[in-house]
Amino acid sequence: MSKGLPKRSEDYSLWYNELVKKADLAENSAVRGCMVIKPYGFSIWEKMQAEIDRMFKETGHTNAYFPLFIPKSYLSKEADHVEGFAKECAVVTHYRLKNDENGNGVVVDPDAKLEEELIVRPTSETVIWSTYKNWVQSYRDLPILVNQWANVVRWEMRTRLFLRTAEFLWQEGHTAHATKQEAIDESIQMMNVYATFAEEFMGVPVVKGIKSESERFAGALETYCIEALMQDGKALQAGTSHFLGQNFAKAFDVKFATKEGGLEHVWGTSWGVSTRLMGALIMAHSDDHGLVLPPKLAPIQVVIVPIYKGEEQLAQIRAKVDEITAQLRAKGISVKFDDRDTHKPGFKFAEWELKGVPVRFAMGPRDLENNTLEIARRDTGEKQSFDLSGDVAAKVEELLNDIQNSIYQKAVDFRTEHTTEVDSYEDFKKVLDGKGGFVSAHWDGTAETEDKIKEETKATIRCIPLDRKEEAGVCIYSGKPSQGRVLFAKAY
Amino acid sequence: MSKGLPKRSEDYSLWYNELVKKADLAENSAVRGCMVIKPYGFSIWEKMQAEIDRMFKETGHTNAYFPLFIPKSYLSKEADHVEGFAKECAVVTHYRLKNDENGNGVVVDPDAKLEEELIVRPTSETVIWSTYKNWVQSYRDLPILVNQWANVVRWEMRTRLFLRTAEFLWQEGHTAHATKQEAIDESIQMMNVYATFAEEFMGVPVVKGIKSESERFAGALETYCIEALMQDGKALQAGTSHFLGQNFAKAFDVKFATKEGGLEHVWGTSWGVSTRLMGALIMAHSDDHGLVLPPKLAPIQVVIVPIYKGEEQLAQIRAKVDEITAQLRAKGISVKFDDRDTHKPGFKFAEWELKGVPVRFAMGPRDLENNTLEIARRDTGEKQSFDLSGDVAAKVEELLNDIQNSIYQKAVDFRTEHTTEVDSYEDFKKVLDGKGGFVSAHWDGTAETEDKIKEETKATIRCIPLDRKEEAGVCIYSGKPSQGRVLFAKAY
Repeated sequence: MSKGLPKRSEDYSLWYNELVKKADLAENSAVRGCMVIKPYGFSIWEKMQAEIDRMFKETGHTNAYFPLFIPKSYLSKEADHVEGFAKECAVVTHYRLKNDENGNGVVVDPDAKLEEELIVRPTSETVIWSTYKNWVQSYRDLPILVNQWANVVRWEMRTRLFLRTAEFLWQEGHTAHATKQEAIDESIQMMNVYATFAEEFMGVPVVKGIKSESERFAGALETYCIEALMQDGKALQAGTSHFLGQNFAKAFDVKFATKEGGLEHVWGTSWGVSTRLMGALIMAHSDDHGLVLPPKLAPIQVVIVPIYKGEEQLAQIRAKVDEITAQLRAKGISVKFDDRDTHKPGFKFAEWELKGVPVRFAMGPRDLENNTLEIARRDTGEKQSFDLSGDVAAKVEELLNDIQNSIYQKAVDFRTEHTTEVDSYEDFKKVLDGKGGFVSAHWDGTAETEDKIKEETKATIRCIPLDRKEEAGVCIYSGKPSQGRVLFAKAY
Repeated sequence: MSKGLPKRSEDYSLWYNELVKKADLAENSAVRGCMVIKPYGFSIWEKMQAEIDRMFKETGHTNAYFPLFIPKSYLSKEADHVEGFAKECAVVTHYRLKNDENGNGVVVDPDAKLEEELIVRPTSETVIWSTYKNWVQSYRDLPILVNQWANVVRWEMRTRLFLRTAEFLWQEGHTAHATKQEAIDESIQMMNVYATFAEEFMGVPVVKGIKSESERFAGALETYCIEALMQDGKALQAGTSHFLGQNFAKAFDVKFATKEGGLEHVWGTSWGVSTRLMGALIMAHSDDHGLVLPPKLAPIQVVIVPIYKGEEQLAQIRAKVDEITAQLRAKGISVKFDDRDTHKPGFKFAEWELKGVPVRFAMGPRDLENNTLEIARRDTGEKQSFDLSGDVAAKVEELLNDIQNSIYQKAVDFRTEHTTEVDSYEDFKKVLDGKGGFVSAHWDGTAETEDKIKEETKATIRCIPLDRKEEAGVCIYSGKPSQGRVLFAKAY
């Protein structure tokens, strides 16, 4: 708390890292690439989980749990899939340690070698489709609409807290359907669920779209995604939903008897969001003073700091605060009364600012006399006197809604300012080197052009927006014909 | 559904395995010893989790998340701990696969060997205490009251669904305190939380006690436990809470500046319950027709089956059911209307019986005329007519409470009948070979006697009950003096 944060304008990356640590969200562990999610960070993730889980259940999904380990041979059954994940996976080869005979402490027991190596799941399509094989016989067994909350491991070489870690937490939905259209509809539905969550709860506007072939999930026929924009002008893929076609059904021989008496392969989808969303949440709204949390995901929505001299004043304030707290809690607003006697008000103000609590009340002896509070909004920094007469809880509720909307609107405005249509490669590069953001440009549809642009500018195609207008044009790179604009950006 | 369950009296073990599978709770996966928790089973686990998590939060704990992997050297830092877990752990040795040059598909890449092997956590004391080292400087940083919900892996050779699996889900609380007494109080508090959960939610009475030294957790100074009794007369350890003393603080050098200006090692506890509780829940109450679930943990508390001929009757029933359902849901009662047209009522009755739904309503045309329902209680099998006039939801709520209490009472009575005091080794063996259950007997307090008894009878000391009376006596095995009775049983 003693030292402030670096400024975003000076070193955005350092600002992010320091913020994550100082706001008690997460830290690096002793295990390479694996993070510790600290209690305050985890309480935000729990709020995200609860809302997402509710939305899954409302759309007919149930949770289940599948094994952490995947036999090596399973991973190999879908050719693209193994290609995509084999290069970065944790491999279990033994099942026992023993005391070294030469006194070198505990060592791997060579006699306890597994017949077949096990991969710590980087994603669970293979182990789940091998299970679905036994669950599906007839069209009556379909659809299967299952999700799991789990940890997964991808052995990333360069890691960053929340954004890219060797182990991360996520949910992965895996559904099985009787028809192609139903599976496509499911993938689109789940992309929409993610978009709704991002916009309404995280306050982060997103572009819905489909990935180009090179950015597609390993084993999918189509990847739907939501793309968000961070304050440094870089994009962040916030969620993906894959239409798998019959790829995994074929790899694991999952067939069903149709109503008409035929036998067909099942159609599949998978979709996921992860603790990466925490990174998006942090980077989209926070400022040089710390975290800015949207009220709907803030573990503490209102903090009350007493300003007092002596026990008697504190007791008077406490009595008033207890009243207010009860009213707020009755409306489901989470309140913390910070009555620690080990820290001064100024220290507390800075701490709750750093931790992004949306509303701060301060109450001193004069407030007691006047039946008022000083209220400070975290998002705008505005302070004003707050009249405690009337329906306090309703007023606070309104304020929280206003903050939620205003955080979202600010992010929408930022994105609008940072979305640029360009028609030449020169302008394209100028925007990328300047204010950054999404660059909307014509592309000839080839992976070759995509690769070249990436090589030369580090920008990738974030998505082909679902709502793009059909507009004939000319690829900014190759000059070849294009059917419409796609969104480019540098990305996390 | 076509074949019934084996009878408990004929083959309890087979009955259990079949029940777990047929009631859609869990199944074995393709990965040795790892289970798939199916949607219905998982929905019960979710209800358990939600209640336990609420109880943790009410006692001041917060959740966090720590790495899945533990460096081999960490595991070795506490001598007893490594001894306890090294023999059954999954070891990650490599971080990449590659395509075999000789065309043997995908193989482990020998160039991607880890410098230090990683152990998939069998429990997280070591990785968590290595983190706490950075969290604790002064007495102001204490206590740390943290829990995590996680998967863990212990390479068990003989596995059984829920009861003993290589991977299982659990929660593990890890707390750090300034004083010994505070840590002891915390361990006892959490044992009490577990006991309350088991009795009030699972309807399973438990004995609270401490473990003998040989049964203690590897690295603990004292292990508190709750022990339950299953219908076959075998005991099941349902939860443990460990007072760790300063063992892990010393192993990881976690010290704090005391109020008085000294520097001392921190005192610790850890405590956990796992998906094993599912096994206890199943075995404690279920019968030859299937699962019997206590209403407080039943994902579906009331199922309504329509009995009709033709669409018109169904529509009339549906209208009435919608009314009832709305009333029940308003009281937080979960209801399912099973209007599948693919199955007959008899099939549905058997299915919901198998799945343990506490209350079944059946509604036919005559019920519509009389404003009644047929109601069947899953626990007793009683059927009666249910008058739909008056406050239906209140009546159902009362019924659910009655079922909850009556399931618990039945288990209490069973335990009373199966707890026997004996004063000779002969009687001891007679009881164990006969009705089984808890056998309360004098023991001389030595590991030697404990081992001998285990070897000869397979019975272990389940616990030294906390509420045992001080009673001088004579060890049933050695004839040496004893300070009080302990509980023996054969156990899962």
